[in-house]
Amino acid sequence: MTGTDALSGRNWPPTPDFDTWPVEHLPVEAGTDGRIVTVAWDDGRISRYHAIWLRDNAADPATHSPATREQVGHPWDLPEDPVASSVAVAANGSLDVTFMPEGRTVAYHPGWLRALDYSNGRRDDLGEIAPTCWDRRRLEAPPTFDGPACLDRDGALLEALEALMEYGIVRLRDVPADETAVQRAAERIGTIRNSNFGFLFDVKTAPAESRKAADSNAYFSGALAPHTDLATREYEPGLQLLHCLRNTTRGGRAIYVDGFAVADELRRTDAGLWRAVTQIEWTFTNRSPATDYRWRAPLVVLDGNGDPCEIRATTFLRGPLNVDFGDVEAAYAGLRAFQTLAASARFGMTFDYTPGDLVIFDNRRVLHGRTAFDDAVGERALKGCYMEREEVLSRIRVLRRALRAKPG
Amino acid sequence: MTGTDALSGRNWPPTPDFDTWPVEHLPVEAGTDGRIVTVAWDDGRISRYHAIWLRDNAADPATHSPATREQVGHPWDLPEDPVASSVAVAANGSLDVTFMPEGRTVAYHPGWLRALDYSNGRRDDLGEIAPTCWDRRRLEAPPTFDGPACLDRDGALLEALEALMEYGIVRLRDVPADETAVQRAAERIGTIRNSNFGFLFDVKTAPAESRKAADSNAYFSGALAPHTDLATREYEPGLQLLHCLRNTTRGGRAIYVDGFAVADELRRTDAGLWRAVTQIEWTFTNRSPATDYRWRAPLVVLDGNGDPCEIRATTFLRGPLNVDFGDVEAAYAGLRAFQTLAASARFGMTFDYTPGDLVIFDNRRVLHGRTAFDDAVGERALKGCYMEREEVLSRIRVLRRALRAKPG
Repeated sequence: MTGTDALSGRNWPPTPDFDTWPVEHLPVEAGTDGRIVTVAWDDGRISRYHAIWLRDNAADPATHSPATREQVGHPWDLPEDPVASSVAVAANGSLDVTFMPEGRTVAYHPGWLRALDYSNGRRDDLGEIAPTCWDRRRLEAPPTFDGPACLDRDGALLEALEALMEYGIVRLRDVPADETAVQRAAERIGTIRNSNFGFLFDVKTAPAESRKAADSNAYFSGALAPHTDLATREYEPGLQLLHCLRNTTRGGRAIYVDGFAVADELRRTDAGLWRAVTQIEWTFTNRSPATDYRWRAPLVVLDGNGDPCEIRATTFLRGPLNVDFGDVEAAYAGLRAFQTLAASARFGMTFDYTPGDLVIFDNRRVLHGRTAFDDAVGERALKGCYMEREEVLSRIRVLRRALRAKPG
Repeated sequence: MTGTDALSGRNWPPTPDFDTWPVEHLPVEAGTDGRIVTVAWDDGRISRYHAIWLRDNAADPATHSPATREQVGHPWDLPEDPVASSVAVAANGSLDVTFMPEGRTVAYHPGWLRALDYSNGRRDDLGEIAPTCWDRRRLEAPPTFDGPACLDRDGALLEALEALMEYGIVRLRDVPADETAVQRAAERIGTIRNSNFGFLFDVKTAPAESRKAADSNAYFSGALAPHTDLATREYEPGLQLLHCLRNTTRGGRAIYVDGFAVADELRRTDAGLWRAVTQIEWTFTNRSPATDYRWRAPLVVLDGNGDPCEIRATTFLRGPLNVDFGDVEAAYAGLRAFQTLAASARFGMTFDYTPGDLVIFDNRRVLHGRTAFDDAVGERALKGCYMEREEVLSRIRVLRRALRAKPG
């Protein structure tokens, strides 16, 4: 890293994006056989790039719009078999490549070129942060951050978002308890996801006169078993924000559970239950006079490696089970086992909401619930919204990019 | 069906949903071994139901809230091994089941019970409509409907939505060319999907002074090759609505292409290209100072049966390809082949937008593009928004339910 400062003063060629690419190594030698360009770096690494890949990623204005950084040509404008006829390391350490038959020479930024080297096993940085699973013993309360600082300072927000991706839940404290603060906080991260419950929604007891028309159990004062929201949708909402505005009732204690930890427990202890929760699909159905969303999915969705990547546990939106006759009782056994573990003291983190608390959690991983409350005494009002995991990942990347460009 | 009218006058038990269940057959005999209830119907069909399934789907107020129709108990409140101790066909044709140890008797609606029979190979009705693939010869213009009728009448809207699911595109004519009509039309279907381009977006040439800050090539006047929008997202938007408000420029002709038809052509003709477009992942990256969405996917995503279920062809948002070294040239060959076919006269339907035209298309199937236009002459303004396929499926189910309840 010692060379970075000295190198950063150089006048590098543009890159086809808005990112910054620290230069830690320089090419020392380059060659081409027309189809493949080979670059030797100052630390001995050898990188290879296809001529068509280099040509496609040219950062000149004829290939990428300087305004949008998007490709400006059509895919068929790209020469079908471009030949990298000559390559040279320029005086400042850029790589110059000349393409035939166009006769065009393009300069490549060495920091970008090195970081994008796909010939040495590089994987895309999609910004994912590996989950750290937890039960109540490992995590008694959500990782907690100062709300006003997160709303105000990029470094504070980044720290909270990284914790959110790792644990699936964070709590911001002292966020002003007004009706639009949750929107302001959400929009610090990204775009709010609209739903049939509205752009923002209120979780508070429905006035007695409108209860017959309530469209969700959440609007009563009863206990809610740990669940995820909207498993009825193809794309279950990735994040939920719940902001406590008022809380003077008795009860209504928050419950949060790491669904990945519950799933792991079943995997570890019972192959039959593991099969039931990962392989047998429930049909989740939205019950409403106005909408009728439906989706089929197992309680625990696995990724390509066989690890849990999504929990679908809106158990009170289960429609009639419709599976092979021989799987019916196994499905119920899996449901019971999963939900009993999720509701147990071992897995559930519980706490009382304080006005100003803004809890953000990964609705595709962390289940939420509450104990019953007594709405004859006081008032309980949460304001909430949905957004997607990818909004957080996008914000993390942009914040890291900004902090890289202007550290400290 | 001759018995339906006579039967519909009977006083049926409730069902755990908001649907209507025509009664076309009645049970004539029922038995139980405690665990499995067996029902013989008047047409000879034998259906079997597990006691736990029947108990879970009881439509009594202690099990399903009469207001929300959602389950009110916790999953662990459901008796673990309920016994259907006795069953009887009631005088009106309902099925009465008594459960032990609760000693509770629940009545089941015969139309519901028959329709939900999972012991005879029933599959959930998720409302899907099989796609009919098309090229320009099979479909010269989008299926076209009267806009005001669709905005006004349920039957007209249902017809248009069914065509949308079958062909992936419809055109509504004479929708009032004002700034909010697209929102009114969208909300006749369901919830609008917000994005970083806004809740509603304008597709018109950016004023010259703001072009340096444009965040999409769509805001220039150049040709756009057929593409899908937002392949940078985990969940590519399912539907796009584009409403023409003004169109007095020269050019800017609409192009629409059935991506499933293009994919099928590659499958039919070239195994290598088929592998390239279905197996090699591109990294789609959003280029913007403010956001940085990224997602990896092949151009053609296959479902569990190996058939195309999603096209991801935002080719101008391709980030640097990052795949096995040996796949790089195959990926480019696949991209070129797919996009060349998509842009060919054989596949592309083209037409001019008339003010008042509202085109709705499945953005996960149908590619859209345009020819270049001359913005020195006249003006071209489209107003658009995104929503999801499942909004259409939900609306279709609700409309069918309403028309079933009140035919004609």
